[in-house]
Amino acid sequence: MRVKPTDLDIAFAGSPVDRADRLRTDASALEALKGPQARLLLLDGLAPRLDGQGALAWGSLADAEPGAEIVFLGLMDGAACFAQVAPALWQGGAKGPRNMFPLLSALSPGDMATFGGAKALVDWHARHRFCARCGSPTELAKGGWQRNCTSPACKAEHFPRVDPVTIMLVELAGAPEPTVLLGRQPMFPPLNYSALAGFVEPGETIEEAVAREIEEEAGVRARDVSYVVSQPWPFVSSLMIGCHAWADSPEITIDRNELDDARWFTRTEVARAMDGDADAALKLPPRFAIAHQLLRWWLARG
Amino acid sequence: MRVKPTDLDIAFAGSPVDRADRLRTDASALEALKGPQARLLLLDGLAPRLDGQGALAWGSLADAEPGAEIVFLGLMDGAACFAQVAPALWQGGAKGPRNMFPLLSALSPGDMATFGGAKALVDWHARHRFCARCGSPTELAKGGWQRNCTSPACKAEHFPRVDPVTIMLVELAGAPEPTVLLGRQPMFPPLNYSALAGFVEPGETIEEAVAREIEEEAGVRARDVSYVVSQPWPFVSSLMIGCHAWADSPEITIDRNELDDARWFTRTEVARAMDGDADAALKLPPRFAIAHQLLRWWLARG
Repeated sequence: MRVKPTDLDIAFAGSPVDRADRLRTDASALEALKGPQARLLLLDGLAPRLDGQGALAWGSLADAEPGAEIVFLGLMDGAACFAQVAPALWQGGAKGPRNMFPLLSALSPGDMATFGGAKALVDWHARHRFCARCGSPTELAKGGWQRNCTSPACKAEHFPRVDPVTIMLVELAGAPEPTVLLGRQPMFPPLNYSALAGFVEPGETIEEAVAREIEEEAGVRARDVSYVVSQPWPFVSSLMIGCHAWADSPEITIDRNELDDARWFTRTEVARAMDGDADAALKLPPRFAIAHQLLRWWLARG
Repeated sequence: MRVKPTDLDIAFAGSPVDRADRLRTDASALEALKGPQARLLLLDGLAPRLDGQGALAWGSLADAEPGAEIVFLGLMDGAACFAQVAPALWQGGAKGPRNMFPLLSALSPGDMATFGGAKALVDWHARHRFCARCGSPTELAKGGWQRNCTSPACKAEHFPRVDPVTIMLVELAGAPEPTVLLGRQPMFPPLNYSALAGFVEPGETIEEAVAREIEEEAGVRARDVSYVVSQPWPFVSSLMIGCHAWADSPEITIDRNELDDARWFTRTEVARAMDGDADAALKLPPRFAIAHQLLRWWLARG
């Protein structure tokens, strides 16, 4: 049975918050939304805080820390939703769990998406206190969807950054059984393999970036790149662009600066790993990673 | 006859320069490449300079201006290719043609791509002299594919920025003739229409960004978004992600802050414009714009 890309469980997508973009530029409307009904997303450092039911915890704007910047996330259930950029986030004193993934796994898909979008935006503000052009301090604008340089001589406008990243399943043409190229980074737990990935650089199409990454990391020439599915990834703030490509030769030359290993795996091996078989030849990335969903799509491809 | 996305003429793609990414981190290899054989891309401000044959003009590293930063573009025909970030570019004194598009139209596809990638990278260096995190000066690293904060207390690493932008053809389901939604910005010349477009924001998939833009700019609800083709766009440094989507209702509500007009056009009307008919109902974007290529693909869709 085929799995359509739209049937995949793409984590961090599908937030119920309406971004209400038109309100960002309407200063008086935005101010009017900051009443007692307004909701403030509560964070521990950059990690989500959960309520008693395992959902995202929300407070009111009265819970914001002194000196915090307030960003407008959008509207949900008739209420305006905000998040704060707490001073500790840019002063280096922010505390939060070292690994927030166990917390994220507990969230509903909608909450995960709302958190992911807010985290990426708040994090951007915390890391962009100054103008990259002239070095002067910047200040929040347009409800948190812009920062402006405070130097009258510069006045540069800065926008939240999203880094496009290609991530790809390379399939070996003519193999007796469908066979896919996966790699492992040195930091991965033992036996863990995932799809190869890399940032899109200036001057590249998606398809060119896919081919370059595969060649660089594994010495494999890819052809016929096709887009499958995308995912926002808030660590730090990427747009993961999931693709499929074909390779004609099984020969691999691993770039040891990037990868610990890269290997071809058969559908049988990947399927066993997907089923959680303890004796499987590899371990897969968790389900909220787009690589996991790409492999689900590939297994069902028939 | 169908036009496959791979048959389209995607401008700024397909540079013959091999990025040779492995050399960026190899300081001694990079130094060794900076000999008399090395080629320096010559620019007027941020515009290309042409040689007598209408090709990109190249000099040697001896042509670099005093104080310029040198970025490594890659290898071509056995020679190392560089570009310079001239001090005038960040000091505000850079001179170049106001409109470089006539110049670009003269270039071969490969030269256009080489120029586009170099322009986006050089421009990024010129606009990122300081650390966005702490405001200290930054310095070029890894052959120009990174900038590092010079403050020992910060040491933040910064990477060339690429902004993902969705650009979409929205087609009206159930129309008697294939019909597409196009809009015009106030700055467009009279009668010029193009595909709607907008930046992907943190927390969105490509498909969500497409649907949001169409809703925001034209009040049209889109479904079944599919990816068609992508393009690097060096003004400033975007990754254009070309998509198709369907709409079920012809009703349009124009966001006058964004658009001067948005209308449905039939295939006949678009085909006449594509043929350069002076009496056509609209004028199309130039062929090096992805919107033009998306419309070519759509016309041939059958």
